[in-house]
Amino acid sequence: MSIAALTEADDGPRSKRPAILAAAVECFGEVGFEATKWSEVADRVGIGQPALYHYFESKTHCLLTIMRLGLRNSDDAFRAAVAESGTAHDALRAAVRAAFEISPQEVQQNRILQSNIALLAGRRSSEREEAERQACRKLVARIERNWADLVQHGIDRGEFARHDPLIMARSLLGLVVSVWRWYRPDGSMELPSIAEFIGGCCARMVGDGAPE
Amino acid sequence: MSIAALTEADDGPRSKRPAILAAAVECFGEVGFEATKWSEVADRVGIGQPALYHYFESKTHCLLTIMRLGLRNSDDAFRAAVAESGTAHDALRAAVRAAFEISPQEVQQNRILQSNIALLAGRRSSEREEAERQACRKLVARIERNWADLVQHGIDRGEFARHDPLIMARSLLGLVVSVWRWYRPDGSMELPSIAEFIGGCCARMVGDGAPE
Repeated sequence: MSIAALTEADDGPRSKRPAILAAAVECFGEVGFEATKWSEVADRVGIGQPALYHYFESKTHCLLTIMRLGLRNSDDAFRAAVAESGTAHDALRAAVRAAFEISPQEVQQNRILQSNIALLAGRRSSEREEAERQACRKLVARIERNWADLVQHGIDRGEFARHDPLIMARSLLGLVVSVWRWYRPDGSMELPSIAEFIGGCCARMVGDGAPE
Repeated sequence: MSIAALTEADDGPRSKRPAILAAAVECFGEVGFEATKWSEVADRVGIGQPALYHYFESKTHCLLTIMRLGLRNSDDAFRAAVAESGTAHDALRAAVRAAFEISPQEVQQNRILQSNIALLAGRRSSEREEAERQACRKLVARIERNWADLVQHGIDRGEFARHDPLIMARSLLGLVVSVWRWYRPDGSMELPSIAEFIGGCCARMVGDGAPE
């Protein structure tokens, strides 16, 4: 269980927050968010409900935090991957590879994120939930912008065909995240092969530029 | 409001079922499934709660029915579109076009379907809900099979490059349905342009075959 992916800068060494998030990822991944009992999360961490409520005011608050951290990790991984790339095609391949070079816990986190993404559409009445929702929405917009910038860069270099960069970015992202709907760790295709397959699809989608 | 898309063979002319489904599509589309009050649906149709319960035992039962009819319509539209096509590339373009030649109500229905697709993962304790869930799962598998057969056909004809047909089918579908996450009727891009854009992406994704 990788705790780093669920840790934040202001979590002290004695904070139970990352452990609660890890247990919640397990539970939501196993039986879904709706069917998970909040008390089950406390039991797995070995804490009481009051301690749980010290960190999260509700199961939804915990879910939104998991979603935000998943988005934060995707954003970080994208930036690290493209920073080292030369051509736009290299950057695109590296970005897709980074999306799939993740731990089983992060796979669960991504599945939870995609399954509950509709939660980001509607305003929350709780202030802390609403703060997490707003942070998630900002990250979604930033990730779309990352990919759109990459597409624009490829067009400017004459590597990619001319398409609306934002619509192309959303389409590339839509394809990448669609994997979390059908991928299973015990399935017939492993993550490196999936990354290779999806990377090829993305490379063909952006098309060939016509340098002058 | 198109009632045909929400009608079933065994709905008599006096059945309130299609009207209830249409009102529920409106409500779920406007404020989301969770935030919709079941009584609001009854009010829009102009019936009482007992009449509502005559048709649907719960809000979830109604949602699963909306999802199943959305999937049924997609399956029907795909079959009609590809039946008239000559080459595999024509069939692929026609299938994508059919996915976007839909009414505003069907757009809402698709958004609801995609937002709540995680509901299909977990067994329902109610028998009627479970029956709808199973029917939805069968339709999802059939739609994947439709697209996989189309990909296989293109490979066999030497039109498409050789890729795992089921993984390619899921990827094409993932791209197509990802549109319902960002498309808005008042947005900058209209459905025919989106169909053209996504159709081009799909055509490039399947790649070029190398006929012998």
